[in-house]
Amino acid sequence: MYRSHSCGELRASDINTEVTLSGWVQRIKDLGAINWVVIRDRYGLTQLVFDQERTEQNLLERSQKLGREFVIQIKGKVIERESKNPNMPTGDIEILVTELTILNEAQTPPFTIEDETDGGEDIRMKYRYLDIRRDPVKNSLMFRHQVAMQVRNYLSNAGFIEVETPYLIKSTPEGARDFVVPSRMNEGQFYALPQSPQTFKQLLMVGGMDKYFQIVKCFRDEDLRADRQPEFTQIDCEMAFVEQEDILGIFEGLTRYLLQEIKGVTIDEFPRMTYDEAMKTYGNDKPDIRFGMKFGELNAVAQHKEFKVFNDAELVVAIAVPGAASYTRKEIDKLIDWVRRPQVGALGMVYVKCNEDGTYKSSVDKFYDQDDLAKWAETTGAKAGDLICVLSGAAHKVRGQLSALRMEIAERLGLRNPQEFAPLWVVDFPLLEWDEDTERYHAMHHPFTSPKPEDIALLDTEPGKVRANAYDLVLNGNEIGGGSIRIHDKETQALMFDHLGFTPEEAKAQFGFLMDAFEYGAPPHGGIAFGFDRLVAILGGQETIRDFIAFPKNNSGRDVMIDAPADIDKEQLKELNIQLDL
Amino acid sequence: MYRSHSCGELRASDINTEVTLSGWVQRIKDLGAINWVVIRDRYGLTQLVFDQERTEQNLLERSQKLGREFVIQIKGKVIERESKNPNMPTGDIEILVTELTILNEAQTPPFTIEDETDGGEDIRMKYRYLDIRRDPVKNSLMFRHQVAMQVRNYLSNAGFIEVETPYLIKSTPEGARDFVVPSRMNEGQFYALPQSPQTFKQLLMVGGMDKYFQIVKCFRDEDLRADRQPEFTQIDCEMAFVEQEDILGIFEGLTRYLLQEIKGVTIDEFPRMTYDEAMKTYGNDKPDIRFGMKFGELNAVAQHKEFKVFNDAELVVAIAVPGAASYTRKEIDKLIDWVRRPQVGALGMVYVKCNEDGTYKSSVDKFYDQDDLAKWAETTGAKAGDLICVLSGAAHKVRGQLSALRMEIAERLGLRNPQEFAPLWVVDFPLLEWDEDTERYHAMHHPFTSPKPEDIALLDTEPGKVRANAYDLVLNGNEIGGGSIRIHDKETQALMFDHLGFTPEEAKAQFGFLMDAFEYGAPPHGGIAFGFDRLVAILGGQETIRDFIAFPKNNSGRDVMIDAPADIDKEQLKELNIQLDL
Repeated sequence: MYRSHSCGELRASDINTEVTLSGWVQRIKDLGAINWVVIRDRYGLTQLVFDQERTEQNLLERSQKLGREFVIQIKGKVIERESKNPNMPTGDIEILVTELTILNEAQTPPFTIEDETDGGEDIRMKYRYLDIRRDPVKNSLMFRHQVAMQVRNYLSNAGFIEVETPYLIKSTPEGARDFVVPSRMNEGQFYALPQSPQTFKQLLMVGGMDKYFQIVKCFRDEDLRADRQPEFTQIDCEMAFVEQEDILGIFEGLTRYLLQEIKGVTIDEFPRMTYDEAMKTYGNDKPDIRFGMKFGELNAVAQHKEFKVFNDAELVVAIAVPGAASYTRKEIDKLIDWVRRPQVGALGMVYVKCNEDGTYKSSVDKFYDQDDLAKWAETTGAKAGDLICVLSGAAHKVRGQLSALRMEIAERLGLRNPQEFAPLWVVDFPLLEWDEDTERYHAMHHPFTSPKPEDIALLDTEPGKVRANAYDLVLNGNEIGGGSIRIHDKETQALMFDHLGFTPEEAKAQFGFLMDAFEYGAPPHGGIAFGFDRLVAILGGQETIRDFIAFPKNNSGRDVMIDAPADIDKEQLKELNIQLDL
Repeated sequence: MYRSHSCGELRASDINTEVTLSGWVQRIKDLGAINWVVIRDRYGLTQLVFDQERTEQNLLERSQKLGREFVIQIKGKVIERESKNPNMPTGDIEILVTELTILNEAQTPPFTIEDETDGGEDIRMKYRYLDIRRDPVKNSLMFRHQVAMQVRNYLSNAGFIEVETPYLIKSTPEGARDFVVPSRMNEGQFYALPQSPQTFKQLLMVGGMDKYFQIVKCFRDEDLRADRQPEFTQIDCEMAFVEQEDILGIFEGLTRYLLQEIKGVTIDEFPRMTYDEAMKTYGNDKPDIRFGMKFGELNAVAQHKEFKVFNDAELVVAIAVPGAASYTRKEIDKLIDWVRRPQVGALGMVYVKCNEDGTYKSSVDKFYDQDDLAKWAETTGAKAGDLICVLSGAAHKVRGQLSALRMEIAERLGLRNPQEFAPLWVVDFPLLEWDEDTERYHAMHHPFTSPKPEDIALLDTEPGKVRANAYDLVLNGNEIGGGSIRIHDKETQALMFDHLGFTPEEAKAQFGFLMDAFEYGAPPHGGIAFGFDRLVAILGGQETIRDFIAFPKNNSGRDVMIDAPADIDKEQLKELNIQLDL
């Protein structure tokens, strides 16, 4: 038996107990006559003591040769600590060691195994197994497990069945790029790894499974933007005989339950907003509503003067930054530089200081008088002391730019409190979006999303105005879930394919098995999928997902620890009937 | 709202309630003046009634046009059923329908959606979404979910953390064939899909995760034997600071818990048997101990006469088949034919009938007298009325043959009761096994399995005799779990690689990251993995796993429903820098 207790377990009430502990050497404080060694395991830290008075000379000397991260087993007696450490759960006691066994030696780790480490991202990833020893990473992984357990318990109690769908499926040209897997037994053919179990969960509904969920890995061979992973985890859900309201109800319940159980945060009803409203008010379909700075559209009160920039713009839109009237010229110039960065892309920014005395000072005083600016303040809700930032241009672009500015300012002002949680449903997404490159409409969600029945007539006349029975769950400015009511009858599905530019033959080749299934009694159904990595990170109070994934890949899709992907044998290629084409 | 109740829910106490139900048409019994329609959902069946007296003519007529598997919604009143059906949970009531909506029509399904279907395996797989509507499949999938939930609850309560390990990893030439995934971003390189998360779970132990588990998909590109799948699910577990006994304790606990919670079967301590004992007694390292027919080795009592076949054999071994002395010559000849099949491969079989009067009648009476045969009976435990079946030959081969015969006979005698559960630990597996083809020793488990410390000295002299700290959990003649204590120090690991014929360079190239990790303080650790598909099937009282997998592949590794694998675009191949080589 390697241990009688864990390293996080012993308390004052255990004093005088003989114990056996095993763990890693965290710290050594060797004063010569006395040597304190702190050992660590998953459960905590315990201080060991070796000293000239009470420890055999030989044992003391051996303890002095220990190094950081050595794996040791000790036997000894729990004694009261002289200088107690109230910050350490075991801080009332220490172990007077009588036996020391080195289970494994360790080289000096390439970075310190402490909460604040000296290791950079790259070295931490290469030695991820050492990084996981650090509390921030270890706790994030344990937190992830806890969230997964709660999700499963909630959904299982609500009658959902977790069904494992296959990983070796079929490539479809729609959507993002698939990872593919050459088949040895079926020469020249390939499996694809699923981008999501979408069609399988719909087939499970056709199969009468009624309520399905799965916490499942999905795969997308995309050029990786920051904080995206080629393999990621989804909470995938589908229900039969439901309308949108049923789905929102169940998954609002799940999210509320997680916030309550895991964060102790009680939230009653989640607010809802249409896609149009979100775009108009926040310039974004996943607004962070933890703070204000709602958009004020100024066209009516800014396009009546000689200022050509505004007069030529499709949209003049502004936010009021609280308390920022005191910004210096230099600070404001920095903001202007920020919105001009290519990543944001604004040409410039007009600003209005709302002085404490009720007067206004703007960068366009040449064109606008105090009455004009007062109307701007009214429209944006600016109060004395605020700074109004105004952007103008093509509506879609300028909304994106102002949204970026709003988020940046919120970050700088500390308004994005990670311990505050503001969920929001965004509903009534457009069914189709126009793609400039291919000059045709694409499904915004996917080709199985149901249009709102009352909008179907618009498909022929104004396809861009057709709304879908589609919804996103947004948490703190992140889309954590999205889904839709699906089409379940072949007529509507055929209509959709037609509007998406598929010939019936193309539709059949790509989605034949699903369309076949629709012939045999498909129930009305719909679902949702949550990005589990992101959900866990946000609940954990973080913006980046990487520390919530045990072995993440870098931005080139590489696992630098195991050095994958890698070359494979010629023999292997031959068996798979492929060759390299570099 | 599509329904107020499910189709399995209504009882006599609901009589007079107005309800809304949705589901599939299961059966129609149309007598003209009255039409009974049974509808089905995941939760059960409910009978609807339409009749001339109480139903509008138009509604009755519409009900008469319904077809099997139509998806309908009805509103109506719960009424008492005249002829109650005690075999149906809702059999006390029926619904007098007032409104009928056809939600979706259905073509006639290609096989009947009944417990006993007229559909063969192939058609059921092609239309798996219809097959899943059948109770035996649906219930198997729901059962699987229930087992998974119980496994997670047990392990989580025992302090295990479920950690998701990556699916896109690195190919290693050891073990079975990998499925590989070409990387677009890393030209000419490939990921591999994991055959198991073995190295990652060991790294998690190095990382201090202490107790890990995962219910996880694994992949092996093997030529498929019956009832094997290219993707399968494992309960994968690993613990640090443990000895073999700790692991057996925890996972015996898990298995006992599942048997208790799910089957209501109480089993105290699981029996244990060494590998050598299992081979000697049952000719098999996964013996089914629900029944006897233990092997009796007859060399000492059968090699003293002139019967050359036995005298030349390395092993003469027999089982006593209970009550089979009454077999006719024809029945015995059939048994002999059975052991001679190429799949079994015996050259012949000697038999002894143990007559009720205490005499013996054998096929080798020419060589052996009653005293000889009495000794055979004693050695095999044969009683009056039994039939002794004797095989002879090379020890390893003949044990396998007799084991096959033992299982076949047990099957025929109905001794393999699927509702009886007989778990067994098989321990002390050999560390190495000799491979005839490559003429060298291979790791029987994997190269990280720890030899028993007391056997290490034998590595140089008698490598085949070195025992491993490796164990299998056997249930009803199936290996449901297997694992080992791992090597955790670099010296032993280097020794092992040396004995397996790896040069240090080869070892580093293939397992460098794990060997590196061992330099930084690896704790003693070990683990186990359960074949989840098999475990669920056995707990569900079945021998085949296919109905416990939602979308299984056939023996060519094809999903015949979605028709995968399939050809992919030239464009896709080009992006991946590969071309076909057929």
